[in-house]
Amino acid sequence: MSALDTGPPVSVPPRAAHHTVTPVMRSQVRALEPTLARICSYHLGFTDEHGAPSGTDGGKLTRAGLMLTAADGLGLRPQDVRCQAAALELLHNSTLIHDDIIDTDELRRGRPAAWKVFGAGPAILAGDALQALALRMVVDDPGPGRVAVSAVFAEATELVLAGQARELTVRLGPGTGVAEYDRIVTEKTSALLECALVTPAVRAGGPAPVVAALRGAGRHLGLAFQILNDVEDIWGDPAVTGKPVRSDIERRNPSFPVLAALTAGGPAAARLDRLWHADDTSAAHVAEIVALVEESGGRRTAEERSRGHLDAALEHLARAELSPPATAGLTALFHRIVHRKPAA
Amino acid sequence: MSALDTGPPVSVPPRAAHHTVTPVMRSQVRALEPTLARICSYHLGFTDEHGAPSGTDGGKLTRAGLMLTAADGLGLRPQDVRCQAAALELLHNSTLIHDDIIDTDELRRGRPAAWKVFGAGPAILAGDALQALALRMVVDDPGPGRVAVSAVFAEATELVLAGQARELTVRLGPGTGVAEYDRIVTEKTSALLECALVTPAVRAGGPAPVVAALRGAGRHLGLAFQILNDVEDIWGDPAVTGKPVRSDIERRNPSFPVLAALTAGGPAAARLDRLWHADDTSAAHVAEIVALVEESGGRRTAEERSRGHLDAALEHLARAELSPPATAGLTALFHRIVHRKPAA
Repeated sequence: MSALDTGPPVSVPPRAAHHTVTPVMRSQVRALEPTLARICSYHLGFTDEHGAPSGTDGGKLTRAGLMLTAADGLGLRPQDVRCQAAALELLHNSTLIHDDIIDTDELRRGRPAAWKVFGAGPAILAGDALQALALRMVVDDPGPGRVAVSAVFAEATELVLAGQARELTVRLGPGTGVAEYDRIVTEKTSALLECALVTPAVRAGGPAPVVAALRGAGRHLGLAFQILNDVEDIWGDPAVTGKPVRSDIERRNPSFPVLAALTAGGPAAARLDRLWHADDTSAAHVAEIVALVEESGGRRTAEERSRGHLDAALEHLARAELSPPATAGLTALFHRIVHRKPAA
Repeated sequence: MSALDTGPPVSVPPRAAHHTVTPVMRSQVRALEPTLARICSYHLGFTDEHGAPSGTDGGKLTRAGLMLTAADGLGLRPQDVRCQAAALELLHNSTLIHDDIIDTDELRRGRPAAWKVFGAGPAILAGDALQALALRMVVDDPGPGRVAVSAVFAEATELVLAGQARELTVRLGPGTGVAEYDRIVTEKTSALLECALVTPAVRAGGPAPVVAALRGAGRHLGLAFQILNDVEDIWGDPAVTGKPVRSDIERRNPSFPVLAALTAGGPAAARLDRLWHADDTSAAHVAEIVALVEESGGRRTAEERSRGHLDAALEHLARAELSPPATAGLTALFHRIVHRKPAA
């Protein structure tokens, strides 16, 4: 059953994002230098590794869907932000191509990652090229708010990279841990969601409180999504999450349930602290970490906190006073994003 | 002896580029996320691998020197393009950081490359961050020509990446070889030199013929530089070129002397064609390739062609009708760039 059937009425359904945005993404990527075009088309699912058309089409387009729906809620037409929505998806994918190299992740959306197929060197250039292309698209696209939208994109790009770099060196622990976690997620996850929601407001010349409300909505949406994502990494179904279960624990990635458990105090937290910082990735070691996280209430705290951020995102959204159908559409999208349901 | 002593009078001497531009580069890089700041500061020579200040300062600033001198020739002050000159140097360095990873080059400016010191993953993020930072700097900097300058930068970035990608798959040979070589060099080498020369004209609101003349100057300057660079890779002094001798031959990189020799025809060219496309990097094999390139006149043809491009660059420069001191200064800079003399 399509997730669309269960949600409230949506002014711009996510499927529309594909019709509106995918042709722009395709034509821009096709115009790249042939090797770059081939790598990017493969990564986006437009083609297989031999360059032949494939049945899939560029991921869930979550960010494009947010942007188009917010635009509708501000009285803009899809074509007023089509180029920006396509650029944002390309920018997001530039970070995914590099992420997979950095993390040596061999699978992306159920297929071999771009670097596994084409080599790390060409894949580095492909990610670079998508970043440059995205920025060029927003700089070149005429129309209202051109400079301000370019600045929003450039700043969002910098924030994502800062968050990814900060994540590499963070050491999870009680104390400053939650603030540091929030900062990383606000950078690496929320920045592009904020960009999606803020761009239409900037383009429409929306007043500062509307821009601020949409920025806040994107910020909390990113936190709600990432925290529940961390929960699902530990207790979720790999067929749904699309990645090996407990990879965050194995790699000692910042994980909110672990952080919550470490912060809870008591003997379980103390033992967890020792296990977490030990250099052991065996299944037994990971299983004991998971048991201690659950015992210390890390899972429950994380789920509550994700719900709190989703509520905060919806409160901010309400303050933006978009049209009721767009607000309903974004509310449905927010829920789908946080709970990782298919966007269409 | 400083190269400055031998050249004609220079309106904005290259040393001025350091005074004007380096503080901006330093402050922008220092403001990055700490891990990114550390990697970029190390790569730029501002700090050593432990983050302690080092004596060096960010390379030759060739592109900043070109931009400042061209700006002077158009009646602009250094501060009118200071931010853009710093951004261009950062953009250039973003490509160098990734280049070293892609080519697995372990040395950069006589020190271990950034990826050797900090790991490939963090170095990928550092290169990404410098690209994003450079674009953000030109987008954010107010003043005339803001949008047009941003577009010049974004387009130049795309061209460099296209040229690097095209180079990965090119197969050197007679026929279309020279056109393909010129295209790659125009993209990967000339694009940022054109950006350096064109940006002040765009910012000064220069008429289209001036912009076109400066673009042509940058295009031919890149070709003159790259072709002589290819000659020096084979017959130059590694202490001057800063890279192992004959690495282009070993790696079968596109090399103009080889291309010229292959195009010359005759038995030497035929044998060279076989050796070049054989999978052999032994010293004896490389030495025979070099002998055949020289025998077929590849070195002489390359040196003549580089001179021809330098002449063409200076003709284009003359057509831009900058102030006489700036034209003299750029003439000196062009010679220094092509002949790889220290810029200050």
